[in-house]
Amino acid sequence: MLSIVVEHIFLLVIVTLISVLQNAFFATKVEREGKEHNNKTAFERVSCANRNCMDSYPTFLAVMWCAGLCLNQAPAAFAGIIYLVARQKYFVGYMGQTSQSTPGFLFGKRVLAFLILMCIVGIFNFLLVRYFGNDYKDTMETITNAASALLLIP
Amino acid sequence: MLSIVVEHIFLLVIVTLISVLQNAFFATKVEREGKEHNNKTAFERVSCANRNCMDSYPTFLAVMWCAGLCLNQAPAAFAGIIYLVARQKYFVGYMGQTSQSTPGFLFGKRVLAFLILMCIVGIFNFLLVRYFGNDYKDTMETITNAASALLLIP
Amino acid sequence: MLSIVVEHIFLLVIVTLISVLQNAFFATKVEREGKEHNNKTAFERVSCANRNCMDSYPTFLAVMWCAGLCLNQAPAAFAGIIYLVARQKYFVGYMGQTSQSTPGFLFGKRVLAFLILMCIVGIFNFLLVRYFGNDYKDTMETITNAASALLLIP
Repeated sequence: MLSIVVEHIFLLVIVTLISVLQNAFFATKVEREGKEHNNKTAFERVSCANRNCMDSYPTFLAVMWCAGLCLNQAPAAFAGIIYLVARQKYFVGYMGQTSQSTPGFLFGKRVLAFLILMCIVGIFNFLLVRYFGNDYKDTMETITNAASALLLIP
Repeated sequence: MLSIVVEHIFLLVIVTLISVLQNAFFATKVEREGKEHNNKTAFERVSCANRNCMDSYPTFLAVMWCAGLCLNQAPAAFAGIIYLVARQKYFVGYMGQTSQSTPGFLFGKRVLAFLILMCIVGIFNFLLVRYFGNDYKDTMETITNAASALLLIP
Repeated sequence: MLSIVVEHIFLLVIVTLISVLQNAFFATKVEREGKEHNNKTAFERVSCANRNCMDSYPTFLAVMWCAGLCLNQAPAAFAGIIYLVARQKYFVGYMGQTSQSTPGFLFGKRVLAFLILMCIVGIFNFLLVRYFGNDYKDTMETITNAASALLLIP
């Protein structure tokens, strides 16, 4: 039974693994800065960047998995990768700065909005199938696959 | 295959989506307060409220999904909605206060306790079915549906 | 349908429940210290320990569930239990200390690495089955079950 399930989620699992490795990278950075002790502001900065990333991490995971389960895993995993890249950029940008011009508390808003949209479309489609018998799922998946490419535009 | 799965989780997905939107609302509040700079205590307060909410967010998600998968999604999603209302009240109450009489670190304890109870009942029932062949699942679901209405009592 | 699913995840659900109860225990500790007010450093310490635990909680949950779904739930749940014990030790150790010789930002690295390895093996095996038709899953599960006992070595 489970191998059927794995077929539908393995891309999501891979993205989750990458995000976990990224978390470990962030935590290592924070730990190393904390041990040095000679640069208080740098530790503050890294710690703050890490906390912002961690605060939005469960939200990201929940939305990505919901989108992947409700509609299709491929665009959800792709959007997840884009999100991870945005997070990496955010973390590195936060670390390197000397001025406090932080790039904002939130990041990757567009990706999250896209994933939320995917969830809504998936549930809406499911309700349509259940109560009206129409099935636009294939059409939806094609559109979503095409739309996910738009996320690459900066 | 997945459309069968979606039938059993779509209410949970909807509640998850609502909670994500609420998170975004909280984060926006924090960002706006952080930009104003003229009110330090207000920012402290909002930031603290946001962190408390975010700290318990993964716990809530995990319990709600487990309860929904193990027993039945309808009462789990209903309890989730109640939890989100309690969180909203907590956040707004934390923000508006001038004195530090915070309503406690934890909130929605009753809802979480109810969801944990649902999980335990679901697993217990599954083990009963597996090893003894009894199936009280229908009875349990009816009782849980009725019991979830008790959560409305403040 | 769902009872088939529950059969494959009930150990994971039990571990998740235990972790939730542990979270509640940590939060209660923090709340009690916060109410006493006469010991500022103790509150700082407990709060910091709690935050470190909470920061890595979503990561742990994600990895455990992925490993449980991709390969087998028994070793994943066992590793989860080991992780919870490590976390308990970390929290208690953090609380009782008078000096700031914290046992590091990360804990349970070995358990997380084992779970990540399980995920990778599971996905790799799935891809092998899909594209080459081999199925080493039974072998893998036996090896993983045996390897999970190695986690007990301190």
